[in-house]
Amino acid sequence: MAKLHFYYSAMNAGKSTTLLQSSYNYHERGMETLLFAPIIDTRFGVGKVSSRIGLEQEAISFNENFDFYDYVKKKVAENPNIKCVLIDEAQFIKQKQVLQLSKICDDLNTPVLAYGLRIDFRGEPFEGSKYLMAWADQIIELKTICHCGKKATMNMRVDEQGNKVREGEQILIGGNDCYIATCRKHFMLGQAGAFILPVKNRENWEAEEPLEA
Amino acid sequence: MAKLHFYYSAMNAGKSTTLLQSSYNYHERGMETLLFAPIIDTRFGVGKVSSRIGLEQEAISFNENFDFYDYVKKKVAENPNIKCVLIDEAQFIKQKQVLQLSKICDDLNTPVLAYGLRIDFRGEPFEGSKYLMAWADQIIELKTICHCGKKATMNMRVDEQGNKVREGEQILIGGNDCYIATCRKHFMLGQAGAFILPVKNRENWEAEEPLEA
Amino acid sequence: MAKLHFYYSAMNAGKSTTLLQSSYNYHERGMETLLFAPIIDTRFGVGKVSSRIGLEQEAISFNENFDFYDYVKKKVAENPNIKCVLIDEAQFIKQKQVLQLSKICDDLNTPVLAYGLRIDFRGEPFEGSKYLMAWADQIIELKTICHCGKKATMNMRVDEQGNKVREGEQILIGGNDCYIATCRKHFMLGQAGAFILPVKNRENWEAEEPLEA
Amino acid sequence: MAKLHFYYSAMNAGKSTTLLQSSYNYHERGMETLLFAPIIDTRFGVGKVSSRIGLEQEAISFNENFDFYDYVKKKVAENPNIKCVLIDEAQFIKQKQVLQLSKICDDLNTPVLAYGLRIDFRGEPFEGSKYLMAWADQIIELKTICHCGKKATMNMRVDEQGNKVREGEQILIGGNDCYIATCRKHFMLGQAGAFILPVKNRENWEAEEPLEA
Repeated sequence: MAKLHFYYSAMNAGKSTTLLQSSYNYHERGMETLLFAPIIDTRFGVGKVSSRIGLEQEAISFNENFDFYDYVKKKVAENPNIKCVLIDEAQFIKQKQVLQLSKICDDLNTPVLAYGLRIDFRGEPFEGSKYLMAWADQIIELKTICHCGKKATMNMRVDEQGNKVREGEQILIGGNDCYIATCRKHFMLGQAGAFILPVKNRENWEAEEPLEA
Repeated sequence: MAKLHFYYSAMNAGKSTTLLQSSYNYHERGMETLLFAPIIDTRFGVGKVSSRIGLEQEAISFNENFDFYDYVKKKVAENPNIKCVLIDEAQFIKQKQVLQLSKICDDLNTPVLAYGLRIDFRGEPFEGSKYLMAWADQIIELKTICHCGKKATMNMRVDEQGNKVREGEQILIGGNDCYIATCRKHFMLGQAGAFILPVKNRENWEAEEPLEA
Repeated sequence: MAKLHFYYSAMNAGKSTTLLQSSYNYHERGMETLLFAPIIDTRFGVGKVSSRIGLEQEAISFNENFDFYDYVKKKVAENPNIKCVLIDEAQFIKQKQVLQLSKICDDLNTPVLAYGLRIDFRGEPFEGSKYLMAWADQIIELKTICHCGKKATMNMRVDEQGNKVREGEQILIGGNDCYIATCRKHFMLGQAGAFILPVKNRENWEAEEPLEA
Repeated sequence: MAKLHFYYSAMNAGKSTTLLQSSYNYHERGMETLLFAPIIDTRFGVGKVSSRIGLEQEAISFNENFDFYDYVKKKVAENPNIKCVLIDEAQFIKQKQVLQLSKICDDLNTPVLAYGLRIDFRGEPFEGSKYLMAWADQIIELKTICHCGKKATMNMRVDEQGNKVREGEQILIGGNDCYIATCRKHFMLGQAGAFILPVKNRENWEAEEPLEA
C-alpha cells in the first residue's frame, strides 16, 4: 500500500534539494515521477522546483482549485511507469487537496512525498501543513539550525530594516520582507540573526545537530 | 558535545550526494569542513568525493596508517572556522582510526559524519563498519531498494557474466566485478536483477520505501 | 535547553504505559516528575493515569483554564528535584496551554513529554494536537495496527450496534460509543473490525509493523 | 515480509520491559509469541525475562548450540497463532544463530525482535551484536543516560571498590563486579558515577535526552 509522506521543516532546510534528489532516484532506475509546485511560488518562475545548491526541474503548477486526484489518475492510467508524486511548498494546499493526496495513495497505489513548512511567521500552521500533519502516514523532519546553533523550528518574517514582523497576511504577495529560520527562544526575542554566521561569533559556536542533508 | 555519526547503507544509496550536501550546508553559512576519501577508491580519481547526480569535490586522501586525530587537531588549531569532518567510504577505516574519530568529537568538539557500507559481498562487516556500529553516537540508515522493491540490505558481487561471486578478497583491486544492492532473499537466491527495472516488470512493481533522498 | 516532545498515536497504542515507564525512569534514579491528566478522562477516575497493562499512578488534573506554566513554575521553585513534566491525553489542552508548555521548556528548562491522539473520529485534529504538532521540538509516533495488519492512523467512533458514527461532538460525554483504531482504508469503508483478531482470520495475517512497545 | 529488528542499548535502558510490553501487545489481541533468554543470564533464574519495573515472564532458554530456526519452525507449524519471536540478551547469540533468526523472518515469515547490548566492558562488540548490526532489517536504539546527563553508550565494569575493570573475560561468571552505563568521556576517565544522582549534583543537572520509555 502506497503511503503519504510529509517532510516538514523551517525555512531553508533543503526541502527542494531533497525533493529533486528523490525524483532523480526514480528516474535513474528507469521510472518516472510527477512534480508539482504552487503558482504562488514565483521566486524562480511558475512551474519550477529550484534548490539553492543549483538543481532545477520543471513542475506542474497548481492553485487551490486544482484536483490532484483527477490529474494523477489520468496520468498514471496513460503511463503506468509513473511511480511517485512529489509536491513542493505543500503548506499551500487546501484540506480537500490533502484528502486527494491520500486517495492517490489508497486508490491509485502511488506514493506521495509532500514537502512543506510547518508554520507561518505568526506560529500558526498553514492549512496544508495542518492536514498533512493530521493525515500523513509518515511525518519526517528536515532539520536546519538557528544562528545560535540550536535546531530552528520557527520562521521569522523580517522587514527591510531587519525587524521582526508580528502581524499581517499569512502569505505575502510582493513586498521586500524575508523569512529566517530561528529557534523558539530567538523567535520570541525577535532576534533573526544572520544566515551566514559572523566570524566573531564562530569560535565557540556549536551546532546542536550537524547540518546534515 | 560533538558527536560521531555513522550513515550506513548498501551500494548506490546516495551516500556521496548526502555527504556533499551536508558539507555544502556548512559552506553556505560561512563555515568550513574537512572531507576525507580513501586512496583505494579510484573510481573517480584519488582524493575526490563524487556522486552519481553529478556533484564532485576534492577530498584529503587517507590510507590505513593515516592519523585522523593528529591531522584534524592541527587543522582546527590553524582554522577554528572548520566545523565538521566528513568521511566517504568509511567502511575502509581501521579500528584505531574509529577511535581517532571519537577523539575528534570528544577532545576537539568537532562533529564527525562518516558514510559507509555496512557489510561486504560475503555478508561480513568491514572493520570500519564494525567499529563505527559499535561506537558511533548516532547510527542512521540511508535506504535503497532491491530490484523487487524491498529495501536492499546486502551487496552482491557479480562477475562479468552476471553471476554472483561467493568467495574472494574483501576488497577487489582491479577486475571487472561489480556490486549490486539486493534484499536478503534475492541475495540468498543469487539474483542480482537490474538496477534499471525492465519495463515488463514495472506494472505491479511497488517500492517498500519511497526512493527518498 | 529542555524540549517539548509530542508522542502522538491512534487509540490503544500504549500511550499511558509509555508515559508511566518514562516517569518511572526518573524516579528510579532519584528524581521526581509532575504528571497531569485531564478532568474529562473519567475512565479510571479523575486524576489518574492508568494503562491497560495494569500500571496506575495519581496525576494532577487539569481543565481548559488551568495554567501549566504558573503551576510548574511554583513547584520547581519549591522542589528543584522535579526534572520532567508528563501530560496524558494532551489532545485536550488548548492553544494557550501549548504555549505554556513551551515556556516550561524555554524559561524553566524543564522537559515536557505530552502524549495524545492526533485526530478525532471525524479526522479533524484536536486543538491540543494541532498546536503540539505545530510547536513541539520533537514529534514521535507511537504505533498501533488495524485489524487488517496495516498501521492504524484513524480513530473510528462506533455505536452500540458496531456501526461507524460519522457526526457529532468531538468529545462525547457519557453514552456508549467506543473508539477503534483503524487504517485509512478501513476507516473510509466504515469497517472497525475486532481488536482481538478472529481465529479464522489469523492464518495469513501479518502485521506491517511489529506490535512493539 | 517479516523483519529482523535489533533493539540495542547500554546497560539498564529498559530492554526487558520493552520486550515484555511488545509481547503483551500481541497477547492482548489474541495472538501468541515465543520468548527466549540465554542460560547464562542467571540474575533472575534460568528461563525468565524480568524487568526492573516488576514485570516477569517465562522464557525458553538457549545456549550457543541451540537451533532457533528448527525450534521456531516446529512451533509455528503446530500453532499458526504464534506471530512474533522475542529474544532477550541477544548479544550472547552466535553468528550462525543470527543467520537462523534471519531465516525465521525470510522463510517462516515471522518477525523477530532481538534486544541486546551493543558492546562489552572493553568496547568490543559481542558476537551477537556484531552480526545483528550487520544483518538486521531495522536497528533501533533504546536510550539511557550517564550520570552526567549525556546519552550513555558504554558499559563500564566496576569492581567491589567501585574501580573500573579494564581487562578480563567478556562474560563474567560469578564474581561481584557490576556494570554501569556511561557516556564515552566518563568511560575514558573511568568515572562510573552513581545510578541514583547524588542530591548535591541535581540542581543544574540536565539530561541530553528525556528518560523516555
